[in-house]
Order: sequence, then C-alpha cells, then structure tokens
Amino acid sequence: MSTAATTPEPREQARPEGATRIVIVGGVAGGMSCAARARRLDESAEIVVLERGAHVSFANCGLPYHVGDEIHDADRLLVQTPQSLRAALDLDVRTGHEVTAVDVERQSVRVQTSEGAFDLGYDALVLAPGARATRPPIEGLDSPRVRTLRTVEDAVALRGLVDDGARRAVVLGAGFIGLEAAEALAHRGVDVTIVELAAHVLPPLEHELAHLVTQELRSLGVTVRAGVSATAIEPGDDQDVVVLADGTRIDADLVVLSVGVRPNTEVFEASGIECERGAIVVDEHGRTSADKVWAVGDAVVSTDAVTGLRRPVPLAGPANRAGRLVADDILRPGTARAIPTPLGTAIVRVGALTAATTGANRAALALAGRAFRTLHLHPLQHAGYFPGASQMHLVVHVDADSGLVLGAQGVGHDGVDKRIDVLATAIRSHLHIGDLIDLDLAYSPPYGQAKDAVNLAGMVGSNVMDGTLRLWYAEDLDQVRQEALLLDTRTAQEYATGHLPGSLHIPHTELRGRLDEVREAAQGRPVRVLCASGVRSAIAHRVLTQAGFDSASLSGGMLTLRAALGDRAGHALVTPELVPA
Amino acid sequence: MSTAATTPEPREQARPEGATRIVIVGGVAGGMSCAARARRLDESAEIVVLERGAHVSFANCGLPYHVGDEIHDADRLLVQTPQSLRAALDLDVRTGHEVTAVDVERQSVRVQTSEGAFDLGYDALVLAPGARATRPPIEGLDSPRVRTLRTVEDAVALRGLVDDGARRAVVLGAGFIGLEAAEALAHRGVDVTIVELAAHVLPPLEHELAHLVTQELRSLGVTVRAGVSATAIEPGDDQDVVVLADGTRIDADLVVLSVGVRPNTEVFEASGIECERGAIVVDEHGRTSADKVWAVGDAVVSTDAVTGLRRPVPLAGPANRAGRLVADDILRPGTARAIPTPLGTAIVRVGALTAATTGANRAALALAGRAFRTLHLHPLQHAGYFPGASQMHLVVHVDADSGLVLGAQGVGHDGVDKRIDVLATAIRSHLHIGDLIDLDLAYSPPYGQAKDAVNLAGMVGSNVMDGTLRLWYAEDLDQVRQEALLLDTRTAQEYATGHLPGSLHIPHTELRGRLDEVREAAQGRPVRVLCASGVRSAIAHRVLTQAGFDSASLSGGMLTLRAALGDRAGHALVTPELVPA
Repeated sequence: MSTAATTPEPREQARPEGATRIVIVGGVAGGMSCAARARRLDESAEIVVLERGAHVSFANCGLPYHVGDEIHDADRLLVQTPQSLRAALDLDVRTGHEVTAVDVERQSVRVQTSEGAFDLGYDALVLAPGARATRPPIEGLDSPRVRTLRTVEDAVALRGLVDDGARRAVVLGAGFIGLEAAEALAHRGVDVTIVELAAHVLPPLEHELAHLVTQELRSLGVTVRAGVSATAIEPGDDQDVVVLADGTRIDADLVVLSVGVRPNTEVFEASGIECERGAIVVDEHGRTSADKVWAVGDAVVSTDAVTGLRRPVPLAGPANRAGRLVADDILRPGTARAIPTPLGTAIVRVGALTAATTGANRAALALAGRAFRTLHLHPLQHAGYFPGASQMHLVVHVDADSGLVLGAQGVGHDGVDKRIDVLATAIRSHLHIGDLIDLDLAYSPPYGQAKDAVNLAGMVGSNVMDGTLRLWYAEDLDQVRQEALLLDTRTAQEYATGHLPGSLHIPHTELRGRLDEVREAAQGRPVRVLCASGVRSAIAHRVLTQAGFDSASLSGGMLTLRAALGDRAGHALVTPELVPA
Repeated sequence: MSTAATTPEPREQARPEGATRIVIVGGVAGGMSCAARARRLDESAEIVVLERGAHVSFANCGLPYHVGDEIHDADRLLVQTPQSLRAALDLDVRTGHEVTAVDVERQSVRVQTSEGAFDLGYDALVLAPGARATRPPIEGLDSPRVRTLRTVEDAVALRGLVDDGARRAVVLGAGFIGLEAAEALAHRGVDVTIVELAAHVLPPLEHELAHLVTQELRSLGVTVRAGVSATAIEPGDDQDVVVLADGTRIDADLVVLSVGVRPNTEVFEASGIECERGAIVVDEHGRTSADKVWAVGDAVVSTDAVTGLRRPVPLAGPANRAGRLVADDILRPGTARAIPTPLGTAIVRVGALTAATTGANRAALALAGRAFRTLHLHPLQHAGYFPGASQMHLVVHVDADSGLVLGAQGVGHDGVDKRIDVLATAIRSHLHIGDLIDLDLAYSPPYGQAKDAVNLAGMVGSNVMDGTLRLWYAEDLDQVRQEALLLDTRTAQEYATGHLPGSLHIPHTELRGRLDEVREAAQGRPVRVLCASGVRSAIAHRVLTQAGFDSASLSGGMLTLRAALGDRAGHALVTPELVPA
C-alpha cells in the first residue's frame, strides 16, 4: 500500500497490510460504478473516491426534470450519499476534494479541500473527472442570469429563478440537454427561445427528423432559432438581453448555457498523461499512458463503433459500463472484457415526442468516407386496427457495399425507444440489413405489427440492396424536377391536399391500366414515383420497372419530403411549392 | 402455364402466354404475404389465392379485442378485401374456395365451392392452410354455447352473446388467446372462470412469472383454475354447466374453447405430402416433399432456433415472413434467404400487465438436454427517481457451458416488450450473456436506466458464469432449509413484513461488522443469503465468500421466492410459512 502524506479524514476501519489502495477521481457515473464494482471484487481493497463537488452519485440526467417540477423534490436526485456508500460498500467517499495534480512517478495525487491540501498515494488511480459546459466566446456570459445545467446546485438554482417569477428564458444550444431544459421551462409556463448554431435542433439527428422535433417544440410554445449564433448577453437590472448574430434581441430573465461539454482534463494533461484534443487517451481497458492510471467517462477519447472516428462520448450508460470494466482490469488483470466502443445511442423526450439515435448519422459517415444508403419508413408502432396506433418516423443507414446496418434514428409518439434499442443491438451484433427481417419480435396488437417496423426496415433495405427497389431522395428534388417525370400515386383525395407542381397523378391502384399515360408524359425521361410514405410508390416502381421504365420511388414519400422541405424553407433555400387543390 | 379444368370465376385480365400460375391455399398471414410479395417480384405471374373462409387478410390477432369492445367495429378487423387486393396487387383472391385434394403429379388442386367443384392447375403451389382449434375429449363440446376464437365470425358471435346478456363465461385453456379472451370478457363485465390443465396459466411462461399473471387475472375478477381439466359440458336451457375433473360445476352462458390448435393438413397429407405428427415437413425454403409445392405458417413443422426441437409454431410474425421468403424462392430460385428458425417470441397483455417470452423456457431446455443457468431480475423500467418507475420481473436462461443467451421472459407494467425484443435480437444474434453488458441502449430518465435491465442481466449473468456470483433458487428452499443457514440481509422494516422461519437477520449494511454472528449461527453449514430482489444479497455473498464462507445468493430474492411459493401453494405442496412480524 502506498503511503499518504496526510489524510484530513481518518479512515474508519484499518485495512490489512498490503491492501490495494484504489483512488478514484470523480464520484458520479463512471467513477462510482468503478468503486462499487471494485468493492464487490475485493473486500480488502481501500477504495477512496475524491469528488470535488458537493454530491456523489447524483442523477445528472434527472436535473432538467427537477427544473420542470416532474421531479419535485431535489433530494430524489441524490441517489447515494457518502454515508450510504460507506454502509453498503465500505467506500471512502470524500466530497469537496479536488485533485490538482498527479505525480505519476510517485503514484500520488495532490488533493485540495477547503481545509487545506494533502497528497494521497495510490496503487491504482482511476480518472473519472467528467466534463464541464463549453463556454463559447459570447460577451456577457458571466451574467448571474446565465446558468449551466450540470449539477444539483444548477438545477436548484434554475428552478429557483422560475419559482421567483422568471417569465422569459433563452436556452443556448439545442442538443439533448438544451431540449430537456427548454421543455422543462416551457412546462413551467416560461416563455422560451432556444438558439442553435447548427442548421437545426438536435444536430446529431438527420434534418428530416429534426424538423419534426422543431414542430413539437413550437407546439409547446417554444420559439426555435436555428442556424444562428448568440453574440452577446447584455446584462440589465430587471433582465438580460440576448443578442443574436442576425441582430435579434431577446429579453431573458434567465439563460441556460447548453452548447456542449468539454473534458475536465487540464490537471491530468499537465501531469503528463497523454491527451488528444483535450480528452484522455485510453486503450480498450481504459488504461492511460501512465502506469497504474485508468480513465473513463466523458473525459476520455472513444473510438466510434461504426465509423472508427475518435471523439469523447459524454453519455451516462457507456461511462457506467466502462467504470465497471476498469475495476475488473485493476483487480483481475488479464481477464477483463474490453470496454465496448460506443454506438452513441441517445434519446430525448420533447413534449409528446420521443427522438432517438444510435450508430452513425450522415455527417459521421461522410466524415468517415463510408458509402451508404438511407431508408425512410413511417410504420405504425402497433396494429393499425388497434386503438392508439400512431406513426413512427425512422431513418436507417446501410453500408452500400456490405449491407451492414450503420445507424438508425427515430421520432414518434410511441415505440421509438423500443425500435432504436433493437437496432442498437443489431448494430452491435454486426447484423446486415436483411437480418432484420428475421428478428423474431414480440407481436400482439397492443405492442407491434406482425411485420414489425424493424422487420419492415429489413425488407425495404434488402430490396434496395438487391435492386428490387430503387430509391430517390427528397434532397434530390430540384434535379429530379428538371430531369424526370414526377408520378404521384396517392389517391385523388390525398393529391388534393397538396402536391408537387408538374407531377402526373395516377393512383397506384389504376397504374397497371394507365401505363400508356405514363409513357406519353415521360417522353423518354425517367419516372420518379412518390406516394405518402413510400409503400405504394414502391409497388408502383415494381410495376413500372417491369414495364421497362427507368423508375425510382421516393424514400419516405411525401411525409419525408415535407419534413425535408420544411427544413430547407427555414434556411431560405429554394422551396418548391406544394400546389393546393 | 398449367391449364385449369374449369374456373367458375373468369379471370379479369388475360395473362401473357407462359406466365407462371402461383396458387396459394389460405389467404391470411403467410398466404397473403406470399401473394403480395410474389406480385411485387413478378407483374406477369397469375396469382390465385384460395381461401375457404369468408374473409382474407383479416386481423386474427385482433379478434379478442372486438369481443372486449376495444375494437368496436368488426369491419376494422378486415384489413384487406379481395377487391382491394385486386386493385393494389392484381391478385385473384377467391373466398369460399376450399381445396379438397392435391394432385402433385398433375400439379393441380381440387377446389370445392358452394357452386360446385373444379380443378386448378399450378406452376407453384403454396400451402398456408393454418390451424384449427384443438377439440379435447370433453363431453358436450358441441353445445352451441361453446365457441372458438379463430375467425371474424367467432368474434362477432362471442360479442353477440355478451351483448345479449351473457353474464358467466368459462374459458377453457389459459394460453395466449385464452387469456386475451378472458380479459376481454372480464372487461365487458362478464364473470369469467379460466380453466387450465397445466399447472399454471400461460404454460410457456415459467411458473414464478405466471404467478404474477394469475394475480393480475384475479385482480380483474377472473377466477383462475389451473392444474385441472374440464371433463364435460352439460347443456341446459338457460345455461350450460362446465364440469371439472375435481367435481367443480361452473354455470356458463358461454364457453370459449382455446386449448390450442392443430394444423389443417389432412387434405395435404392424404395427397402424399410428407407430414410429421400432422404438420407439413418443409426445408429451409419452405419446400415440401412434393415438387413445386411450398408450405408456410401454422401448418408446418419448424425447428426451434435454440433447442433444435421440431414443432409447429403458430405465430403471425414468422408466418408472414416465411410467406414472403417462399415467394422469393418460387420466383428467384437459388437466391432466396433461408426462412429463419423461430424463437417463438410471444407477448400478451393481461390487464395492466404485459407478459412476454422469447427463446427457450425451462421445459424446452430440459427436453433438449441443455444444461443452463437461470437469472432472475426485478429492475425498474426507467430511472427510479423519475415518476412512474415500476418493477419488471425478468427471467433469463443462459447456456451453462458457453454462456449463450438461450431464452428470456418478462412480466411487468411497462417496458417488458422492449426488453424482450432486445433479448430476442440478442438470441438471434448468438450473443453471450456478457455481451449484453455492452449493448448501447437508449437512456434518459423517462426511458431507461444508465444500466438498462438488459445490461444488468448481462452483469449478473457474467458474474454467475465466472463464479463471482453463486446463486441458489427458490425451488431449492426445502433442501436449503435443512442444510444451510438462511441469512436475510434486508432492513429491519422489510424483515418485519414477513420472513422465512429460522433465518438469521443481519442488514447487508451491517454484515461486515457482524461476521462473527454469521459464523456462530452457521456452525460450519453453508450460508444461503437472501434479500428483496437479489441485489443486496449478491453484495453480501461477495463479503461472505471473501471471508471464507460457503455462500450463495437467492436468485431474484424474496420477490421471486414469494411468486414461486404462491404457485406451490396452489398445488398443495409444502409451503414454508412466512413468519409475520
């Protein structure tokens, strides 16, 4: 056992001579999982958790819901206390203890507390310092009305501002936490504007799905400003003014800063532990460049499971699991499982909607140089004849060469979490798109369809892969309008609700008898078919292609097209008009 | 193209010379999926669907919900009609057409209609005749008050009996359809008794989970009689009397017969197509022993994906997918995917509960001679601090040698369908129990936990596989009480609500300081630990085993033990008393 220089808090129990001392820096997700697992593996180890904040093991993912009063009592967010962890797991948990340096040669950390500093030796050191809110270069960001949402104190403070009468809020950043904060504040009756620098809210989500989230935010009364940055916060007596790059000025009683996070790694990088763009570099067992030093969680670089891209993945689930595996590697060296590469699966509730993603999105695939095909589906979450059936909106990316499932996203009122979890399992298991057909998912009318949404994705995708189905995309509309005949195969009623100008209208049920009309209108051009969701146009495509036409079916149909146009319209690009009846 | 002898319904459109004629016997799940896929692959094929009933493509899984009035309008159950299928897919669908013989040499079927009989030649024949209700040897089963629940007419008739004032019902058979029928009738205010020959309701479910379903049925006002057969139905003027083997007599205004199904295969077996215990034998592409004859759905023998056991699997999902793949094999021979072996995934809603299963259960594993270990978990479906958190009850079977996940079951109020679908995907993907730790499932507080229930199953299971955790089971209680010290590690409050006589009580938080008491009480005997759900007892097990005790932790804790005892009590086995406070 290493020798501590001074320990202001005496140990309650003496450890046997030669016991391993494991020092863990950070007592929330990854750190605390590591500590708990270490104790279960080794009763004799001395396990010291150093947390610079006031709380350990708190529910950081629950913070927005305290602001929104769905979790009324802040104490509910404190899942464990140092006392409960001592009692159950004999952990030596010290809050208000900040590590300010690591001496990797002497195997010792420097610890700062309100009562002074001391050195603490370790046999194994686990760095789980997490991340802190990114502070963009916005003038006036130090206004007391600007808060992040990272700690229980943050949540209590934000909630207090609302309790005290805050009526107008600006949320800077429309990522997962920003959306949760906006929803929570709107739920409390606050007038919320959410500002996002990227082209749309929830940047990891594809734009055609993000548009549905934008619509839901608007239905909650939230003002959405995407594609614009905030440039300054002008403090005032009664309120601040948030100034946007386009000159918009928004009054705000409070501002939530949620534009992202960056690893808390300066201390460790300065101590000589290898970092990459500010995140700690670790191997598959969480080992850093320094002997006897491991790291987990938001502060480390991960290698994306699908693309191989290296980036920090600040998510609770992977952090918890990595913490556990680091304990295994410390106490059972040579036998521990590798820490899984993350898929980046994430989910958010926005009003009545769920939005979720797993695996790679278009941007990541483009960055990685992967050729892929995209599927759009709008299946029902359960049998259409059973009460409460509602559409989900799914996007699935498939490797163009191998057919591997690379990524999936979904938005809908019900059942999205289930399908994304199934698809996350499929991606982790290296399933090909056709394998999704074979998944034996639980079906009865309240829960699914005999051909579940995931099975349908497999069917559509395998049709695409083997050439049975050829797709065109909403993004290609301008080009398609120039070069091809648009054939709308919806019913007359649907067509009358709005359609693309210049399109030929033949309901899919009449197509076989009216192929001559198609031939005449096409004049040798390709035919690009569409319907509401892509099902009927796929049937029509099969009719056309077997009749000798150069045909393709609009992926996701008008539902996807409208969402994609909605986004474009928001950015003042060319917007083909839908012709009203 | 083969030549039909006579066709009473003339073809609406002439087919080109040489077009393939595909004749499909049965127009519901597998048959209709085959027909639809065949048309999408081949515009020129002649596709004839012969359905002996009055409807095709009806929602057979929705029938109980019409009885229960959740689906008010019976027309909602008619998903497609011959007319809609002609319009969309140019299918020649003929209801009221029963195939009475197959001439496999001449490639022709004999068809009986109300207007006469005719022969119809085929180039490819697909048998999707489905199954019919098993009729056990019960006297009086031909009473007009006895109904099955297989067709729209059945559902309308049962509903009519309730509308007309039926007050008392007996449901014979507590499988999936029997439970749905019982729930539906109870929902309508009918006094329902459900009778099941097997030891518990939902025989595919493990008894400790089935007990929870029994409790839910009782809370719906349903009387549950398991482990007893019906021997006679005595018709009366105003009502029938159902007589059970134990002499119980139950008045019934209506009786639902739902003791299982058997394949409708007599005609085909008589035509020389190979069958095995009444079900049609097919290869991995659905090909029967006869040239150019395929079969799918409830009428065929399947090979269980986990156990290799051969049995018909009467489920809609696999039937639909097999129908699609048979069309591929007919029209794209040599390139079609193999029909997946079924996992038998199934789900049922019973009141506020969901019960679901995938893969093998104990009985199937025993039959197949597989050595396995069983895990019991009671995780929350989402974060405990978020409103609405509720426990799920999961059972997972793991191969004792390889660690492969073999089967999983769940019962709970929320989130069970998601976990069973994830586990079904894991089993299909041949994941090992430890791989479940690595699944990157979507987490935010309304949807899950940072360590999802499935991740937890992986953690518990891998601890069991590598010896970190040793389990004992509720079924072994009698032996354990004789040979070991029972150590109850719950809190004093929990202990006071009821505990096993003779157990030593030490809360897990005090165990490290009171090991001497355990040593004294054990007197050299093994220590068998328990808590409420198996989490704290696992921690205690680690403490004990590292202190040199022969220790094991009760799988699933008192929650599982109580459910298991409940079942035993129902069968008059020895029931250890829980000592009240």
